Amino acid sequence: MGSRVHRVSLGDTWSRQVHPDIDSERRTPSFSVDRLTNILDGGVQNTMLRRKVESILQSDPVFSLKDLYFLSQDQLYEAAVQKTFHLEMLARHLGWSEDGPERSYANRALAGYTNLNLHGVAMNALTSLGSDEQIAKWGQLGKNFQIIATYVQTELGHGSYLKGLETEATYDAATQEFVIHSPTMTATKWWPGDLGRSVTHAIVFAQLICSGAQHGMHAFIVPIRSLQDHTPLPGITVGDIGPKMGFEHLDNGFLRLNHVRVPRENMLSRFAEVLPDGSYRRLGTPQSNYLAMLVTRVWLLLKGILPHLQKSCVIAVRYSVIRHQSPLRPSEPEAKILDYQTQQQKLLPQLAMSYAFHFTATSLLEFFHGAYSAILKRDFSLLPELHALSTGMKAMISDFCTQGAEICRRACGGHGYSKLSGLPTLVTQVTASCTYEGENTVLYLQVARFLMKSYLHVQVSAGSTPQKPLPPSVRYLAIPGPARCAAQTAADFLCPDLYTTAWAHVSTRLIKDAAHHTQTLMRSGVDQHDAWNQTATIHVQAAKAHCYYITVRNFKEAVEKLGNEPEIQRVLQRLCDLYVLHGILTNSGDFLHDGFLSGAQVDMARTAFLDLLPLIRKDAILLTDAFDYTDNCLNSALGCYDGHVYERLFEWAQKLPANNQKNPAYEKYIRPLLQSWRPKL
Amino acid sequence: MGSRVHRVSLGDTWSRQVHPDIDSERRTPSFSVDRLTNILDGGVQNTMLRRKVESILQSDPVFSLKDLYFLSQDQLYEAAVQKTFHLEMLARHLGWSEDGPERSYANRALAGYTNLNLHGVAMNALTSLGSDEQIAKWGQLGKNFQIIATYVQTELGHGSYLKGLETEATYDAATQEFVIHSPTMTATKWWPGDLGRSVTHAIVFAQLICSGAQHGMHAFIVPIRSLQDHTPLPGITVGDIGPKMGFEHLDNGFLRLNHVRVPRENMLSRFAEVLPDGSYRRLGTPQSNYLAMLVTRVWLLLKGILPHLQKSCVIAVRYSVIRHQSPLRPSEPEAKILDYQTQQQKLLPQLAMSYAFHFTATSLLEFFHGAYSAILKRDFSLLPELHALSTGMKAMISDFCTQGAEICRRACGGHGYSKLSGLPTLVTQVTASCTYEGENTVLYLQVARFLMKSYLHVQVSAGSTPQKPLPPSVRYLAIPGPARCAAQTAADFLCPDLYTTAWAHVSTRLIKDAAHHTQTLMRSGVDQHDAWNQTATIHVQAAKAHCYYITVRNFKEAVEKLGNEPEIQRVLQRLCDLYVLHGILTNSGDFLHDGFLSGAQVDMARTAFLDLLPLIRKDAILLTDAFDYTDNCLNSALGCYDGHVYERLFEWAQKLPANNQKNPAYEKYIRPLLQSWRPKL
Repeated sequence: MGSRVHRVSLGDTWSRQVHPDIDSERRTPSFSVDRLTNILDGGVQNTMLRRKVESILQSDPVFSLKDLYFLSQDQLYEAAVQKTFHLEMLARHLGWSEDGPERSYANRALAGYTNLNLHGVAMNALTSLGSDEQIAKWGQLGKNFQIIATYVQTELGHGSYLKGLETEATYDAATQEFVIHSPTMTATKWWPGDLGRSVTHAIVFAQLICSGAQHGMHAFIVPIRSLQDHTPLPGITVGDIGPKMGFEHLDNGFLRLNHVRVPRENMLSRFAEVLPDGSYRRLGTPQSNYLAMLVTRVWLLLKGILPHLQKSCVIAVRYSVIRHQSPLRPSEPEAKILDYQTQQQKLLPQLAMSYAFHFTATSLLEFFHGAYSAILKRDFSLLPELHALSTGMKAMISDFCTQGAEICRRACGGHGYSKLSGLPTLVTQVTASCTYEGENTVLYLQVARFLMKSYLHVQVSAGSTPQKPLPPSVRYLAIPGPARCAAQTAADFLCPDLYTTAWAHVSTRLIKDAAHHTQTLMRSGVDQHDAWNQTATIHVQAAKAHCYYITVRNFKEAVEKLGNEPEIQRVLQRLCDLYVLHGILTNSGDFLHDGFLSGAQVDMARTAFLDLLPLIRKDAILLTDAFDYTDNCLNSALGCYDGHVYERLFEWAQKLPANNQKNPAYEKYIRPLLQSWRPKL
Repeated sequence: MGSRVHRVSLGDTWSRQVHPDIDSERRTPSFSVDRLTNILDGGVQNTMLRRKVESILQSDPVFSLKDLYFLSQDQLYEAAVQKTFHLEMLARHLGWSEDGPERSYANRALAGYTNLNLHGVAMNALTSLGSDEQIAKWGQLGKNFQIIATYVQTELGHGSYLKGLETEATYDAATQEFVIHSPTMTATKWWPGDLGRSVTHAIVFAQLICSGAQHGMHAFIVPIRSLQDHTPLPGITVGDIGPKMGFEHLDNGFLRLNHVRVPRENMLSRFAEVLPDGSYRRLGTPQSNYLAMLVTRVWLLLKGILPHLQKSCVIAVRYSVIRHQSPLRPSEPEAKILDYQTQQQKLLPQLAMSYAFHFTATSLLEFFHGAYSAILKRDFSLLPELHALSTGMKAMISDFCTQGAEICRRACGGHGYSKLSGLPTLVTQVTASCTYEGENTVLYLQVARFLMKSYLHVQVSAGSTPQKPLPPSVRYLAIPGPARCAAQTAADFLCPDLYTTAWAHVSTRLIKDAAHHTQTLMRSGVDQHDAWNQTATIHVQAAKAHCYYITVRNFKEAVEKLGNEPEIQRVLQRLCDLYVLHGILTNSGDFLHDGFLSGAQVDMARTAFLDLLPLIRKDAILLTDAFDYTDNCLNSALGCYDGHVYERLFEWAQKLPANNQKNPAYEKYIRPLLQSWRPKL
């Protein structure tokens, strides 16, 4: 198959032999790792194509990620632009289409160390919000990189609350132009990627004003740098916002616009247009503007967020079979740390989540494809459900992936703090996803409003035939379940129907509880907005339970479909069980609160959970191998396929430039300090 | 008083006027902020001295932290060595004594941006483990910086399990020398601070072998770099381990020793010595070697860990009264984000923890001072209690401070991801504390063993008069409490005795449950070590509950003592209540499990918690002001005393070198990309 050769890829001499401690973990697989990889890839053809792309990149030193950990911010930026440029040339050379899978596989192989990715987001915005003529014109320019664009929305003073954005686009009928302007310091656009040093054009979101009337946020194509020499155009102040917690290779930027004029045709006008005389015509819903963000969010889950958790699991689990620490019994040699229950309890739920979120994100993507084409044809009926699902899943998956990556990092002890482990980069990148493309608490509150509405719909319809059915994701709210869990033994907690029902029960109860609290306050005379604020944290809790329920159902259904792959089904079933039980135990108060579970039942769930750990531990290395990340892409001294952790840590550290230079601080400060002592007279 | 002038310290023109949104928060204080600062400092004299030291440093540009965010790792290292050198010269000039408070205040003012701090840890190890002659000789050399030392324990292949350390010290009676040697790659010392580029000497922990017999770990003073030219001495391979998640200014290093010889007198011999003929004499307990770590741990809490959470709170709370986002009611202007319940729920429990941990760490320090002097006189009776308390508090406080700092960072949205906010540095530094000086899970398990032992002691003594009283921290295990909580209203949950009892109940139940599980497994024939591993996660849970109980009791007692400061007592009482209720709600499953709390009572606790939020919110700015961190030390564009967030973010970003240079990537890659399009023929 060549898959092992594919994985062992850094070309170090010691890679010829896999470390016996990790080799033994792969000797007697209970399922086919390659087959599981194919399932994750969506088919064997995809796996083959992906591996082909990976080996093409592997053979070109420009695409190597080695030594990135030693570079400064400026060097990282330049290296990423170089990779981006070479990748584009390579793609054209090989005839990879713009939206074909090869480019996506290449990005995966480069672990996101490319720039100009906002160009794609800007092009998505064009497709979502532009008229057909605009798509034809600007899409072509963008496709050829005759222009490089980014998506410019967030301002220094405003992010999640889009109505508060201050940038103005005032229509001037005399010249048929929009005047784009930052009226205040806080109106400065802030954060857009690739803006600081790279792009030529920006899709700028601004408040539209025509004939003195405000029409809310719209998108405008604004040239910002000269296509001749890249200098800022008149009226434009643009630059880099400076160092960040992660993503140092990206030039997130700021932009101030001083009465910059663009032609009337530069307003994206699929859902709204301004006629030459300044009259305004709306063609979509006010929500249409959010569409571009929605597309980005769904895409992000599988490509931008989840891989960070998966890779963290690969690194931490592999390291945990190489690292030994104290004997489990006095007479024995030191045990692999993965044999400790405490280490299993940390890592294996993260591994289970890596799979749970894969199946949830895949299922969301399928739903998205159908709903999105309808929306582009101006059929908005599926938008609320799509919005609630994508919002909730983005919030939940980014939260848990961030928490999980950090758990994996810490589970590697001191070495997890070294950048050479790869883990600090994964953690500091994924934590950004809790904030970008919608701050998670704000997103949970949006889900909560959808849930409150759905619940009130159920309340009103109770007894009568509802006029409109609930969207599928919340239909469980209308289905009565048992008031007490039926489990009588630990084994009962391995029943998917039982635990899915348990999550449905808790979610329903919390949504009801939240709605009840808000309604009670309002009935007592509190204004509805105050009532919402005074119960907001309760609503967030309910939204989180609902999201968890969605992932449980998705994982359960995905496993059920694997009937013709019994060995893989068995191992994924265990992961599903572990995922759900971990959630129940972490939130046991929510299950005990109304007596749905008794204390004794929680203990049974814990027994079931603890009993699963050693079973999954046996397959842990195989389950991480199945993600099929190359060593180059993991870029981790701890996480390579061959298990040669210590040799690699030592060798990589030797390459640090400071280890091969004089220390200037010695002559300047250390020697003077050592010689500063003078005996008192 | 001049305290405002003291705080407004970056000298920007806009600092002359405080932003009205933060000014209004300080207008009608319900308590004296200065008085609270004095309490935190341990007296008004300390506050005055601290402020004096801060203003001395403030006036010297060498000590400015400005622009640190733009430096490379090498530059950061050099800047920190420079500060260290200048500080030492300043201290001598001003006659600050070695262990006087001024140096500690100076370190606080410099936010830890100094090097050679491991020198102090090494000197502590010398004092803890060295004979009086050794202390006299090496202490004098160290005091004058005639040598610079570090503490060298951790190896590439071993950290927490000290028995597994591989470095050997073999006594050669012929020359009366120890031969210190790294027998394997994994024996390479790895991680010690200041080792990579700075120190001249190392206190190396190695397995002692004399006359063929192994005697376990002992400490040896080993010269590693020439005092003439700083080059590594014969047999020494030393260098920097490379980039880390944080602390980039520190040169954590590696060290390989190839049969390096040191005189017999270089083994630290307070608790064990090797006579000239190679015979070995033990003078202390085998635990003595851990003493140096214990000292470091206790010291770390107040100086190294807690300030990170406190500063994160200062920054996030101040930003949250400047940042506005959407109106709470449609007709109103946008609200301060601190007025949102969701923001209060994130930040105010962190603020409460900042105070809770201050009082716990202070109380531990008091206990430590008494116990430590006894131990140095070889009275080890208080060692188990001191060990359990310091271990548990280090684990808990570092866990919660890390979690809390990240919550504060995320609560600042996108700007919290910018290094200019100061928050990424705080988060990436404090998370290291979960691993260094004892990995937290390992520490919790040590606490658990102490608890298990204490519980078995109670079991055995039940009914009879115990021969030996339990140590004070676990005496509650022997005191029977109510089986059900007596609370009948939300207000009942504001009763310190009621909630302290609740935590004692839960902790006792979980310790009992853990012990019961282990004993049941052993009775069923499982070997005791397996039984321990199979219940380890349950023991960790119990240890966490015990630690929480300790902090509750300490906070409660500290507040009780403030009877002559009624206004401060009232505000701290609210923080104590919030801290405890937050813990109950986060762990509600543990309280509901055996029916100690009912679901209705949990709802009451939640009501009490939510009702406290707006009360504490009113004092939030004052409570963060009271920590009295200078703007220079916070080094945050978001967290300055004057509230001019956006001006500072904008101005600091302009200083990024890349914003004032040409972009080399343009000519190399971006221009070629833009011009790569050619019309097809």
